[in-house]
Amino acid sequence: MSVPDKNGIPSHDMNLQAVQDSMLDGLGQLASYFGFSKVMGQLYGALMLSAAPLSLDDLVELLDISKASVSMNLRTLEHLGMVRQVWVKGRGDRRKFYEAETDFWQIISNILAGREMRDVSRALNVMDDNAARLSKSMSNMSESDQELAKLYLERMEQMQSLFRFAQLLITSILGKAGEMDVSQVSRIDLE
Amino acid sequence: MSVPDKNGIPSHDMNLQAVQDSMLDGLGQLASYFGFSKVMGQLYGALMLSAAPLSLDDLVELLDISKASVSMNLRTLEHLGMVRQVWVKGRGDRRKFYEAETDFWQIISNILAGREMRDVSRALNVMDDNAARLSKSMSNMSESDQELAKLYLERMEQMQSLFRFAQLLITSILGKAGEMDVSQVSRIDLE
Repeated sequence: MSVPDKNGIPSHDMNLQAVQDSMLDGLGQLASYFGFSKVMGQLYGALMLSAAPLSLDDLVELLDISKASVSMNLRTLEHLGMVRQVWVKGRGDRRKFYEAETDFWQIISNILAGREMRDVSRALNVMDDNAARLSKSMSNMSESDQELAKLYLERMEQMQSLFRFAQLLITSILGKAGEMDVSQVSRIDLE
Repeated sequence: MSVPDKNGIPSHDMNLQAVQDSMLDGLGQLASYFGFSKVMGQLYGALMLSAAPLSLDDLVELLDISKASVSMNLRTLEHLGMVRQVWVKGRGDRRKFYEAETDFWQIISNILAGREMRDVSRALNVMDDNAARLSKSMSNMSESDQELAKLYLERMEQMQSLFRFAQLLITSILGKAGEMDVSQVSRIDLE
């Protein structure tokens, strides 16, 4: 694995190389601990530690993983707004180039504003519809089905509370994001 | 796909079936929107909507996906404390049974108390060490490597701020979790 500098030429400083290896390894591990793919963490790390945008081929070479896996995981990172496609002046072939979004508020905003969040809202609506459907049809069910329907209603209620709390939390954080430096936040109060 | 009742016998109520299908489909989609595997969402949904613990074979049959995929994704859910193995009285064969953790505070507590979080702390320490290493060795680098070292330091600093903020946020939420009902939280203040 080599560190490409601004012109894509590998640099040979031992310390830079070691730090890059360590960061990519660490981010890959963190990603997989939290249930994401390891490759997502490595790709984000590689783009975050690059002075210039990188192409899919650059990433395949740097990380030594298959093109299919790089491509699939880049798409997921793009969906999450953590990586974006950029046009690179002077490298005008048909290849796509990617860079990391390093502003984490921007990432959260992207997710909230994007298709993903609309789908979360839709999922909440679908849960509402499902709950209404069960409540309405419960009286016609067998006793054991009624038991199960009650369980479903209870579990959906728990999940809806969680989603509503997550929405409130994210909205509160984003509301402050413009005003303050996150690294200066010292207290968080829930009321 | 059939809905097993408490005794593992498929139930045939149309509405229950439709709600289960819809929830599993929705949770699978949500999981994949956020960069997790779709199977993780479906598995969690299947266990959450089951009155009794399910075995690996039950899940393979219910979701119609490969045993290898079910097994791998169950392991990830277990790591995250979202699913746990349980012993089932009367089904005393060698098979393992699983149930969903439905208390979301418990899931967050599990993650914070577990191996995963110690690894996040270790990752933060490794970043500190890497930053110290770069600062110390920068003066011996070529000019272009120094530029890159500065970029590395800046990006690692951003990432560390984010992790520290996330730790504060989670600690604040957990600190309140014993005292209050999340569904009653109406305001969140950052100071």
